[in-house]
Amino acid sequence: MKVIKKMLNPGDTIGILGGGQLGRMMALAASKLGLKTHVYCPDPDSPAFDVTAFHTCADYENEEALEDFANSVARVTYEFENIPSATVEFLKKRLLVLPDEEALRTSQDRLTEKNFFRSIDIQTASFYEVSSQEDLREAVEFIGLPALLKTRRFGYDGKGQVFLKSIEDVDGAFERIGSQPAILESYVPFVKEISVIAARNEKGQIVTYDIAENVHKDQILKTTTVPADINEGIAREARKIGETVADALDYVGVLAVELFLLSETHDHRLVANEMAPRVHNSGHWTESACLISQFEQHIRAVAGWPLGNTDRHSDVVMTNLIGEDIEARQDLLAKYGTAFHDYGKSETRAGRKMGHINRITPKKHG
Amino acid sequence: MKVIKKMLNPGDTIGILGGGQLGRMMALAASKLGLKTHVYCPDPDSPAFDVTAFHTCADYENEEALEDFANSVARVTYEFENIPSATVEFLKKRLLVLPDEEALRTSQDRLTEKNFFRSIDIQTASFYEVSSQEDLREAVEFIGLPALLKTRRFGYDGKGQVFLKSIEDVDGAFERIGSQPAILESYVPFVKEISVIAARNEKGQIVTYDIAENVHKDQILKTTTVPADINEGIAREARKIGETVADALDYVGVLAVELFLLSETHDHRLVANEMAPRVHNSGHWTESACLISQFEQHIRAVAGWPLGNTDRHSDVVMTNLIGEDIEARQDLLAKYGTAFHDYGKSETRAGRKMGHINRITPKKHG
Repeated sequence: MKVIKKMLNPGDTIGILGGGQLGRMMALAASKLGLKTHVYCPDPDSPAFDVTAFHTCADYENEEALEDFANSVARVTYEFENIPSATVEFLKKRLLVLPDEEALRTSQDRLTEKNFFRSIDIQTASFYEVSSQEDLREAVEFIGLPALLKTRRFGYDGKGQVFLKSIEDVDGAFERIGSQPAILESYVPFVKEISVIAARNEKGQIVTYDIAENVHKDQILKTTTVPADINEGIAREARKIGETVADALDYVGVLAVELFLLSETHDHRLVANEMAPRVHNSGHWTESACLISQFEQHIRAVAGWPLGNTDRHSDVVMTNLIGEDIEARQDLLAKYGTAFHDYGKSETRAGRKMGHINRITPKKHG
Repeated sequence: MKVIKKMLNPGDTIGILGGGQLGRMMALAASKLGLKTHVYCPDPDSPAFDVTAFHTCADYENEEALEDFANSVARVTYEFENIPSATVEFLKKRLLVLPDEEALRTSQDRLTEKNFFRSIDIQTASFYEVSSQEDLREAVEFIGLPALLKTRRFGYDGKGQVFLKSIEDVDGAFERIGSQPAILESYVPFVKEISVIAARNEKGQIVTYDIAENVHKDQILKTTTVPADINEGIAREARKIGETVADALDYVGVLAVELFLLSETHDHRLVANEMAPRVHNSGHWTESACLISQFEQHIRAVAGWPLGNTDRHSDVVMTNLIGEDIEARQDLLAKYGTAFHDYGKSETRAGRKMGHINRITPKKHG
């Protein structure tokens, strides 16, 4: 029997591991709810440090700093899944860390993640474990080409993966990803990429947002459009996948599942690509098109408070501002029906997520 | 010819005088735009201190602290109009303070304010300057009863005023408001209280939000409903008043004008009650029913950036949470279609504004 933990009181402090834009937007959402935040991040230039009264700039391995951090907050959450597990172990002995380790472990390793999806009857691409160049040759025989070779851990925005189009690409590919534990995944001929954002609290209340349609460019999310151009049946299936994942992990917080939509003629139209046990870039549209954003839902869940409704009041297109895109600031600010969000990063770098815009229009349907 | 001042750069710091909920919500809005904030307030318990990396807790008369503050920010704004003018004078010599002193001076003194409204052909109640009990008797003869005796300065939420219903109330009334410079105002038999929120930037761009209908209880704002139940002609007139005031003051920032609506048979249906040279409680609905809130418009104006559009995507009722109202937190969080905002005040006191809720519904018209 699951024990419901004591909910947070107003004025309590939530510790946030990670000081990037996601931590920053979580801190802003917590403020709206009357909660304080304390951001922990090794990077002295963390954008989240600017929006909160308390921060710790220290390595994730610094036990003294972690101890002080644990003593200054009521519970801990995080903005990204690649936190060292030793850090979470250390904190867990002292206070509640949400979402809990099972979700972290599952999403930190592509092999574990795919096995998890399969275990709860969610389709994935075919995959094969690869620990050597020799394994890779076996895997290619098993899976066929084209396929993707991906490191099991620490991959994001296309980092740590190579595309194997034909047999010539196979030689040396394992070395090219750093000779790390990997998986070979069959290439999925998808017609659309969509995602579901779900929130779940300790009491098992689950809400999902309308399904989002995503377009990537250079393996980084470029736009999210809501509603996705999909039929209602697919939307229902996608929401159901979000709920199933959240329930299976006994999850507390917001999570995202990225899905490939195959052509309608396939037996299994929806294939899970990956999950993120955190607020997600493909949910940034909720900030402008819903009364309650994904960031606020996450904080509500972590606080042990009721989730809010996820109704969407407007149609919306979110566009990431990558690198120099942000320099169009003055034009973007003046654009009709457009919300501009700047993450406050001090340095503009190519490929870096600097901000986003949400363009809203009145709802066409429903 | 007006000199357009250099606009702020991303990452610049805006100084905010006042650390209450308005300063807090301004700081949150600035964060969304990639700007930093530094909050200055004498109260160590200031709720705005929790949402920003920089704050100064010092008296408004502390020149050393003000000097340091001025050196650490790019320009200064404020959350309330009762800042000592010496503080503004001191800062003004060092950097830009927006909105500028003329707006402050006008709104700090009810007599100046009423004369200002009249000077730009905006109707007000009849009024009469009162500096003694003898003046008051003269004023009553001139204005008639019922009437309101109000201190010229430092009044808000009904503080510093008495209602004179009949001649028996006149004796000792001047003493009851502390024998301060005052005005006697005729009582306006209004049918509705409405308000207009306008934003103006240095370039003279002006935007106004949809007109709000306000209900006060015990002289504190209880609810704001938008759209107001008024005809389009009145809404146009009210918006025009906001624009006229902003232009006349060469104003930069957000301002609110509270208006009384008299019965349709009156010659002048709209009478200005007072103006606030700042974001305003009757504009809190914009946070949930518009893409761009009054707080963000204020920050955009102060930064010298383009204003955003003020379109309203939903109908909305804002309800202030006064004193113990906030304790219904768990129910309010679970309420359908409702956004909950807690100002993070550490102490709940009767009559204190602790937070607000915005209940949105799909637009009925337009």
